[in-house]
Amino acid sequence: MPALSIGPRVRKSPFYDATLRHGAKAFTVYNHMYMPTVYKSPEEDYHSLVNDVTVWDVAGERQVEIKGKDAAKLTQMLVTRDLSKCKVGQAKYVLICDEKGGILNDPVMLKLAKDHFWLSLADYDILLWAKAIAMCHGFDVSVTEPDVSPVQVQGPKAKLLMTDLFGDWVNDIKFYHFKEVDFEGMPLVVSRTGWSGEVGFEIFLRDSQFGDALWERLMEAGRPYKVAPCAPSQIKRIEAGLMSYLTDMNLNDNPFEVGLGWVVDLNSEANFIGKEALHAIKNKGVKKERIGTVIHGDKIRGNEERWTVTKEGEPVGELTICTYSPRLEKNIGIAILQTPYADENIAVEVHAPWGVLKAETAQLPFIKSQR
Amino acid sequence: MPALSIGPRVRKSPFYDATLRHGAKAFTVYNHMYMPTVYKSPEEDYHSLVNDVTVWDVAGERQVEIKGKDAAKLTQMLVTRDLSKCKVGQAKYVLICDEKGGILNDPVMLKLAKDHFWLSLADYDILLWAKAIAMCHGFDVSVTEPDVSPVQVQGPKAKLLMTDLFGDWVNDIKFYHFKEVDFEGMPLVVSRTGWSGEVGFEIFLRDSQFGDALWERLMEAGRPYKVAPCAPSQIKRIEAGLMSYLTDMNLNDNPFEVGLGWVVDLNSEANFIGKEALHAIKNKGVKKERIGTVIHGDKIRGNEERWTVTKEGEPVGELTICTYSPRLEKNIGIAILQTPYADENIAVEVHAPWGVLKAETAQLPFIKSQR
Repeated sequence: MPALSIGPRVRKSPFYDATLRHGAKAFTVYNHMYMPTVYKSPEEDYHSLVNDVTVWDVAGERQVEIKGKDAAKLTQMLVTRDLSKCKVGQAKYVLICDEKGGILNDPVMLKLAKDHFWLSLADYDILLWAKAIAMCHGFDVSVTEPDVSPVQVQGPKAKLLMTDLFGDWVNDIKFYHFKEVDFEGMPLVVSRTGWSGEVGFEIFLRDSQFGDALWERLMEAGRPYKVAPCAPSQIKRIEAGLMSYLTDMNLNDNPFEVGLGWVVDLNSEANFIGKEALHAIKNKGVKKERIGTVIHGDKIRGNEERWTVTKEGEPVGELTICTYSPRLEKNIGIAILQTPYADENIAVEVHAPWGVLKAETAQLPFIKSQR
Repeated sequence: MPALSIGPRVRKSPFYDATLRHGAKAFTVYNHMYMPTVYKSPEEDYHSLVNDVTVWDVAGERQVEIKGKDAAKLTQMLVTRDLSKCKVGQAKYVLICDEKGGILNDPVMLKLAKDHFWLSLADYDILLWAKAIAMCHGFDVSVTEPDVSPVQVQGPKAKLLMTDLFGDWVNDIKFYHFKEVDFEGMPLVVSRTGWSGEVGFEIFLRDSQFGDALWERLMEAGRPYKVAPCAPSQIKRIEAGLMSYLTDMNLNDNPFEVGLGWVVDLNSEANFIGKEALHAIKNKGVKKERIGTVIHGDKIRGNEERWTVTKEGEPVGELTICTYSPRLEKNIGIAILQTPYADENIAVEVHAPWGVLKAETAQLPFIKSQR
């Protein structure tokens, strides 16, 4: 791996110093912020996640905060889910699409009050999209990036760690719901969400000065459960069939092509940007779809860019991501293939930089998620 | 420096393989693309830039392409310069502001035809801002990110390299003008622009498959002039007083506070987003301004985040960037200070992580730019 320059153009997360102290070895940049990717090794970090409990600095999941009289109106315009029945304290996995149905983001939306929403973003400056739309419509709303930094606590022992630290009320938070809380002077939002397919929580720290303190309290509370500092695990998320914006999809893709049609509430009263285009796309039928892939041969550590997929030599799509799964003991990946090939058990070829590999399509997820 | 994870979420530049082959040791991420930052060392790279000629992979300066019937109208709305007299073949350093006058970007705008513009971006997804505004106004225009990747050729021997490679016509390109050309089958735009304060060019490669070929042709043509692969030089740009978006300014700053009032054509007929707010800000007078800073004491390699500046212990602003200048043989930086202190020769204190350093404000630029 090459070195990463650290300078003032990219932001340090409030947990940055703590992550270095706890052994973060490699980073990426996410929403203009350094984000750890590896501590011990991708495999060792993965074993902590699937066996014990892990703490992730995902402060790079920046929030767009929408607040004010027209906040509900603007938020509904932006996201492809019907928010009419969404309650305060509820979160939703949503998509943001452009007017052609191209995907701009797949955030988690949190409804903090009837006039107060967060979009917890994947890596793309949705702040600009939301600001421009609010401006053009003259909405009475503020659209900002607040001082809010998420940490994920994920793994089969996440509930043990969280109840020890915060109390039994944590168990009352339902899946995709959250609670606002003040903990030892730290203003937090605690949600039952995450990007692991394991049981887990996100803690949204609302004051960055407490980054170090929160991190240490989590590590301390996790000690009986062999807590490990980790990063979003590519291995685990591929097993679970979870998508990553810019890796597996971008603005040239529509939700139906990437397995996210279920996130589009086409048959609701909700009016959102892209709805008309998405109706048309759905009626016409898509030409490519998402499918799992098992790749035969030696262990694959990962791919640095998309790899071409062929069927008997003819290009039929792309493999977006792959890895060796230690639990399944095989190489698995996610591909976007032309529809006739986006079905299970079809023999294809995957073009790695070092050669053509035999592969087979497979159902997603490879391993079902825990709630 | 920590390691940088290389994966498919962040894009490789068309010059990525070439830069690794030519010794790129460290990278950053810029507009979702890996961008080299160091080859030999920041100082050695700087010496090549100020003495000879250097080639930079700045493909991360992605373009927003605005094309179609309403392209001129949309582009004028977006940028703070009066484009009414801008000719085809002309480039302009522009700002993009929001409706409150906050800076969203400082791209170079290129007018390729009367209905065809590029905004060559600093690191922020302006594509989303431009797309949203075009959509809301129902403009007849396409707003996309084309396959265009800039390389900068900068240094006192840049003209020698460029004329050897392309021919004498290169000398006819005036400062902030450009020419479209086909070179050995590679579609290029060659401009007299750059971010070094040295004489220089940008070559916008319009087909990424030629990344490797173009890079090698440049290195080969530069051999007689001791060409070196380099990256944007922080040392050189601080000497020249050039600004870096997200380092020295962001959406919380207005142009008058960061020395860029000259980029705002307030007294023109041009209507652009933020004009009204910027009028009001100018009339009211700003509370902070940009100023150079000389920091006494041991050599400073650089800063990882902004440092607080105090005057006799009272906070008066922030140092955004600093470095040791080998030619001036002192530490220099750029600060944004409250107006009474944003003047020359004022003694202040700079708060580095390892202690309080004596400093003095100074005129910008430290070294005048070459054209």
